[in-house]
Amino acid sequence: MSQDYRYFASARRRCYALLFEHRTRSGRRMETFWIVISLLSVLFLFIESSATDLFPNIPDILYRFGTIEVAFTVLFTVEYVLRVVASPRKIHYPLSFFGFIDLCTILPMYILWLIPSLSVSPDLVVLVRLLRVLRVLRVLKLLRYMSDAGILWRSLMRARRKLGIFFGFVAIILCLFGGLMFAVEGGKDGFTSLGASVYWAVVTLTTVGYGDITPHTALGRMLASVLILLGYSIIAVPTGILTAYMSQELEKGRAARSCLNCLHSGHEIDAKFCAHCGAVLEAGTAQLVEK
Amino acid sequence: MSQDYRYFASARRRCYALLFEHRTRSGRRMETFWIVISLLSVLFLFIESSATDLFPNIPDILYRFGTIEVAFTVLFTVEYVLRVVASPRKIHYPLSFFGFIDLCTILPMYILWLIPSLSVSPDLVVLVRLLRVLRVLRVLKLLRYMSDAGILWRSLMRARRKLGIFFGFVAIILCLFGGLMFAVEGGKDGFTSLGASVYWAVVTLTTVGYGDITPHTALGRMLASVLILLGYSIIAVPTGILTAYMSQELEKGRAARSCLNCLHSGHEIDAKFCAHCGAVLEAGTAQLVEK
Amino acid sequence: MSQDYRYFASARRRCYALLFEHRTRSGRRMETFWIVISLLSVLFLFIESSATDLFPNIPDILYRFGTIEVAFTVLFTVEYVLRVVASPRKIHYPLSFFGFIDLCTILPMYILWLIPSLSVSPDLVVLVRLLRVLRVLRVLKLLRYMSDAGILWRSLMRARRKLGIFFGFVAIILCLFGGLMFAVEGGKDGFTSLGASVYWAVVTLTTVGYGDITPHTALGRMLASVLILLGYSIIAVPTGILTAYMSQELEKGRAARSCLNCLHSGHEIDAKFCAHCGAVLEAGTAQLVEK
Amino acid sequence: MSQDYRYFASARRRCYALLFEHRTRSGRRMETFWIVISLLSVLFLFIESSATDLFPNIPDILYRFGTIEVAFTVLFTVEYVLRVVASPRKIHYPLSFFGFIDLCTILPMYILWLIPSLSVSPDLVVLVRLLRVLRVLRVLKLLRYMSDAGILWRSLMRARRKLGIFFGFVAIILCLFGGLMFAVEGGKDGFTSLGASVYWAVVTLTTVGYGDITPHTALGRMLASVLILLGYSIIAVPTGILTAYMSQELEKGRAARSCLNCLHSGHEIDAKFCAHCGAVLEAGTAQLVEK
Repeated sequence: MSQDYRYFASARRRCYALLFEHRTRSGRRMETFWIVISLLSVLFLFIESSATDLFPNIPDILYRFGTIEVAFTVLFTVEYVLRVVASPRKIHYPLSFFGFIDLCTILPMYILWLIPSLSVSPDLVVLVRLLRVLRVLRVLKLLRYMSDAGILWRSLMRARRKLGIFFGFVAIILCLFGGLMFAVEGGKDGFTSLGASVYWAVVTLTTVGYGDITPHTALGRMLASVLILLGYSIIAVPTGILTAYMSQELEKGRAARSCLNCLHSGHEIDAKFCAHCGAVLEAGTAQLVEK
Repeated sequence: MSQDYRYFASARRRCYALLFEHRTRSGRRMETFWIVISLLSVLFLFIESSATDLFPNIPDILYRFGTIEVAFTVLFTVEYVLRVVASPRKIHYPLSFFGFIDLCTILPMYILWLIPSLSVSPDLVVLVRLLRVLRVLRVLKLLRYMSDAGILWRSLMRARRKLGIFFGFVAIILCLFGGLMFAVEGGKDGFTSLGASVYWAVVTLTTVGYGDITPHTALGRMLASVLILLGYSIIAVPTGILTAYMSQELEKGRAARSCLNCLHSGHEIDAKFCAHCGAVLEAGTAQLVEK
Repeated sequence: MSQDYRYFASARRRCYALLFEHRTRSGRRMETFWIVISLLSVLFLFIESSATDLFPNIPDILYRFGTIEVAFTVLFTVEYVLRVVASPRKIHYPLSFFGFIDLCTILPMYILWLIPSLSVSPDLVVLVRLLRVLRVLRVLKLLRYMSDAGILWRSLMRARRKLGIFFGFVAIILCLFGGLMFAVEGGKDGFTSLGASVYWAVVTLTTVGYGDITPHTALGRMLASVLILLGYSIIAVPTGILTAYMSQELEKGRAARSCLNCLHSGHEIDAKFCAHCGAVLEAGTAQLVEK
Repeated sequence: MSQDYRYFASARRRCYALLFEHRTRSGRRMETFWIVISLLSVLFLFIESSATDLFPNIPDILYRFGTIEVAFTVLFTVEYVLRVVASPRKIHYPLSFFGFIDLCTILPMYILWLIPSLSVSPDLVVLVRLLRVLRVLRVLKLLRYMSDAGILWRSLMRARRKLGIFFGFVAIILCLFGGLMFAVEGGKDGFTSLGASVYWAVVTLTTVGYGDITPHTALGRMLASVLILLGYSIIAVPTGILTAYMSQELEKGRAARSCLNCLHSGHEIDAKFCAHCGAVLEAGTAQLVEK
């Protein structure tokens, strides 16, 4: 093994520690740095999209924002390259969820810069806007630093089968009422197609109720009332499922906390001392459960 | 018993096994086939209803869709006939819920084909549309393959008495506030009849809030606020009822899981080994509970 | 005691049993009769309010409906008189909640009949409509026959202190955001007074969202988003309170069921046999708990 | 220590007892007095804001209301001064949350009175309105007397970490869907900026659904349906979290109640007698738990 390669390997290892591990002090600082950058870049997108309204007096405002955008893109490109290089198994990171997201947030700008004819072509205006909006995926970078969602995620995963069956039922109800409403209201007042009727049913059953499509016949209103009251009853079902699982997870957490001194378990989640022998309960375990 | 009849009886038995039993391999394949066909036929209805918008360049698009419709109707007719023939007690299937649904989804097309004058009569346009929309009931065919909704259904069934009383209360509140609002707003701004006022009360109490009918007087707005805050309080009641029953069902499931080796029970629902003797817990039981 | 008086007293007792007791067979029949009459009279009000739309071809439809109304009023007057007479303590029933409701549903018609000048006076049109709409209180008569709402009512009563504090908080939040929004949006787009702003806050916090009053400035929309997300968090609080109490009530019910043979308790609510000795569990107790 | 100072010190102590302690009889009377005054002052603000509508016949109505406003301001100024004087550590009260609120509700009027040019300047109309609306913060004075929100607050505090993570997730979803919708609907129908799109996403995900901004393209409606159904699933999460913690708090309360006679614990929260020895349970403890 040559001196150079060894140096490179050790640099890569340190780089990996900086980017992927959050237990070391420098790793945590790096994490904070990337969180702040990601938040700033998303905030920047919001300001950019209303730029002409917010700063009506600065004529070259969009050009100036373009410069800031270049800075963000370069920064995220550096992050991407470092992560690819630092990853021990080269192919692993670019193919992962976060690798894909990271790529999506830098690629659009390179495409727009490399093919300048795109921006001026009137036919591709939707494509260009979509490419620019893809940058909003930067917000997903933050998910990387929220890995301790533990109990929420576990409850959702364990409830996924039941939630799946529930949403199957909901889909059937939506198709049924959408279809009936399409027949009853008859193509008027927004019920122009089966798709629009099902969209109305979604908006109604979930109690969103935009009011852009509403029934105007007496029969249609009765049908809508039935659908609404049905929604009112079944809105409770996912709540019930998730609550039941979450209670179990919490109880499990309680049982998991045991005193290291007398092995007594079943302590309150926020207890600081063993209720049996008075020994200090390990905060670490408690945190593990709290998360 | 003649040879012919015996051959027929055995064919019927195999046919029954294919259509009504899902435990054999061929039965499961048949099930998948009918699920796919049902989903396709519903998807087809959606595309058909927006056909002229989606394919504006194809002039005879509705005619082409008519051809596909014939294929689906024939397929479902074959299914219906097979199910009637295969059913051991002839009258049982046609009189069942699914028999009724299956008939409803094929009958309308035969009526429209047998009485072509229906489609051209301007007076019966609503009836024709209703007949055509009845095909959307095909989505209910999928319910047949979702029989394992277990815990949801049991909780709903056990809670039905309490939910009934609750909806009785809700109905009384709706009539009361609908009536008061009708008097206060006085026939203006959509409150044109007691029925319309109660429709407004349904839309409001359940927090759907279309906004097609809204109070415009100060007194009306006060009354609406009271109704809304009332709705806010009682929206919790069905959730509470269902959650309480679901927790019980889940606990029951937990108690039901017992180790076949040492008969220890009370295992976690996702446990794979007995916590007492380490023996493998039967997955079958776990699944039975999970469903 | 004279013969006449004794006859009268016994008639009164039988009358009382008929009207106020639901345990005898004739009492239950009487109850069913009054439920049906009450439901019919409410249904009649709905049809009456849309009479000219439903039956455009019958010119004297309102007059005909007036005749039916007389019948209902007479029937309810007879009920009221019987209940007053049958009540052992004369003053008790007329001063009770149901006595007040019963009076409210018959009095308006007598006022309108005795002072016919009311109906023609253009100044009193609101008063007349209010008097007529008071008849909708007939729906409250049905509450009399829903006395077994047990668990719901008990949970609500026990939670009333916490719900009170919660709604105090909500009122403070509503005033605060209503006031801020009034200042920010400044009298435009429906935010015309503090009252209207608070009405908007009620409609928004509870996720009803009519859309008749909506923020149009960027600052107003930010404020609205904060209020909405606040509502999203605290919508859970009454649910949580009620669910916790309801679970307790259900558990209490479970403990209350004990086998009459071996005194073993803690049975499942839908258990039919004692899990300990196999004796039949009393259905009566179970029903008492189920209610 | 001079006689004067001692007299002053004792007056201050009595003043402190009156204003900050609610256990003495005079303290409770003082509390009731300030609650009534605060409620009246808030009610006054509502009436004032609709004054010209409510009393169209009184020309100098706004002037008259101004006189009442002076009275309230003077009263609250006296309260503020007394509290500052009575506070043992001078700086403690003015820097506290309630000190800040109390100041905010009296300062604006003094600013408006001292700088009369403010009210007539057309440029500062927004500032003046904001200053006047600040008085609505008086409603927050009531929070002082709602300190026993115990269980609600404790559950919220213990759940704040999980609720924080949850709202982080929600924020990411909102940005994502807001951005996608901005690209799909393309600046039309209210989706004019990323900010407006995220506002739409907030209104939609939380099922408020004003309907002031709604999707009009088929793709936009599909995206909206996905966001709505997502909201429908995750609306349960904060409910689940809070309910689980509240159940624990209630159970804790139950365990905390123990009979002073036989030390038996685990009584029902509304029990009045010990289930074990029949001794009267202390109401104080029960209340402590109930709160």
